[in-house]
Amino acid sequence: MTAAKGRLFGLGVGPGDPELITVKALNRLRAAPVVAYPTSHGRKGQALTIVEGYLRDEQQRLPMVFPVTTEKLPPPFDYETEVRRFYDDSAAAVAAHLDAGRDVAVLCEGDPFFYGSFMYLHDRLARRYETEVVPGVCSILAGAAVLGTPLVYRDQSLSVLSGVMTEEDLRQRLAAADAAAIMKLGTTFAKVRRVVADLGLMDRALYVERATMGAQRVAPLAEVDPKTVPYFSLILIPGPTWPGSGPGSGRGAGPGPAAG
Amino acid sequence: MTAAKGRLFGLGVGPGDPELITVKALNRLRAAPVVAYPTSHGRKGQALTIVEGYLRDEQQRLPMVFPVTTEKLPPPFDYETEVRRFYDDSAAAVAAHLDAGRDVAVLCEGDPFFYGSFMYLHDRLARRYETEVVPGVCSILAGAAVLGTPLVYRDQSLSVLSGVMTEEDLRQRLAAADAAAIMKLGTTFAKVRRVVADLGLMDRALYVERATMGAQRVAPLAEVDPKTVPYFSLILIPGPTWPGSGPGSGRGAGPGPAAG
Ligand SMILES: C[S@@+](CC[C@H](N)C(=O)[O-])C[C@H]1O[C@@H](n2cnc3c(N)ncnc32)[C@H](O)[C@@H]1O
Ligand SMILES: C[S@@+](CC[C@H](N)C(=O)[O-])C[C@H]1O[C@@H](n2cnc3c(N)ncnc32)[C@H](O)[C@@H]1O
Repeated sequence: MTAAKGRLFGLGVGPGDPELITVKALNRLRAAPVVAYPTSHGRKGQALTIVEGYLRDEQQRLPMVFPVTTEKLPPPFDYETEVRRFYDDSAAAVAAHLDAGRDVAVLCEGDPFFYGSFMYLHDRLARRYETEVVPGVCSILAGAAVLGTPLVYRDQSLSVLSGVMTEEDLRQRLAAADAAAIMKLGTTFAKVRRVVADLGLMDRALYVERATMGAQRVAPLAEVDPKTVPYFSLILIPGPTWPGSGPGSGRGAGPGPAAG
Repeated sequence: MTAAKGRLFGLGVGPGDPELITVKALNRLRAAPVVAYPTSHGRKGQALTIVEGYLRDEQQRLPMVFPVTTEKLPPPFDYETEVRRFYDDSAAAVAAHLDAGRDVAVLCEGDPFFYGSFMYLHDRLARRYETEVVPGVCSILAGAAVLGTPLVYRDQSLSVLSGVMTEEDLRQRLAAADAAAIMKLGTTFAKVRRVVADLGLMDRALYVERATMGAQRVAPLAEVDPKTVPYFSLILIPGPTWPGSGPGSGRGAGPGPAAG
């Protein structure tokens, strides 16, 4: 008879404010004997920072240390190799606990399946181990909340884009969007802002950095100094306000607001 | 001297499972003397259903009763008029409590600013009253979690679309998307599925109804009977798996996974 394997939990811990974790993720977190989280040399990692106050001493911590930093990025091929090795090694370290019968909670900032680092562990482990993913509040909705701006109305589309896209790609996608969120700014910020300005969207564009974290900052996009833009930042271009008022402003779908 | 006005809270209560509310929304909910929620004649409303177990008897309930149903939709102009009046009346009812100095928590299924009914109250009240919006887990990320499928990788775009869009609009937007979520299905389902099939996306398309609610159901899109599709359903087309492995599969942005 083989001992039961541990279960894998992918926990969305929300965008920054420790209170923006869900009750379910908090329960799973507290029950887990092993807590794994992405980090990099000399840093704590955002996901751990968010939930640290909830952890108990007897919970074992499993840092997954990312080997490369932006500052010394090797050429693309080496970067890819490093990243693959990082996820392979991290999955192996998590699997060792699971094989020994210990549940592992893997922390993920925001939501695990929305550009989350947990996805790469999930793809390596979910077929072999019982897995539960607890969704979380994602950064773009946290951003909308702290900016105090409804993001997307009724039958509008929402396009979530990445600052890493080429300028042309960004331009086309943004031109076609009703509402948009642009993530991964940092060094890509100047390019993104140029596209937003070219398309005449500056008036509608809002910027937020470190939403719901300690050093949160919000600003109209036009007022942001590109040199100060951190990794944890995003741009929102809310959909045009639908007033629930004039004729011809849209058609109804479904049973109406009682349903959501 | 005038008495202090009450504060307005827009609370995301998550997609269905009562444990998928955030700690913050739960705290705000418990502290509120008045709890408002959208509903329709003869129904409880999804948002109230989700949090009902958390409420105390002494909290005053303020149902906002939506006047029209899908079954007897009047022509567009009348529908718009009805909807406007509904939100005007609801805002006035909430404002009466705020003016009397009572805080009001307005419940919203999922996230308040992601196609949420709270947006229309926010647009009518937030300039006049101190307002806090607590973001929530939105339906599309809950759907990805219960389907066990990472939604969007790395530098991919995510397009959130509505079944109410015209067939041509849907076709163009879906063709351009890396990953997509399509909401508001119900009567629009057959049209949406036709577009997905025409674009050769059937193999990647997943369907979920009532994600994290009691009667949850997941299925490959090809297997869904259009006649059974409820309002609380959506289609996900996850972005192609990025293995964190091969060369040429993308470029790095920012400080890597330690940051999210
Ligand atoms: C690798 S993605 C992780 C996304 C995360 N899983 C989520 O659900 O939001 C990292 C990007 O998310 C955005 N981000 C995450 N947290 C943020 C926050 N608190 N404030 C602003 N942007 C944030 C930034 O655009 C950052 O470049
Ligand atoms: C008016 S929108 C409300 C969205 C909500 N504010 C959110 O954050 O997800 C209603 C649509 O959301 C989707 N939806 C909401 N909750 C859902 C659930 N639990 N399962 C599947 N779809 C859901 C359906 O597509 C539905 O037509």
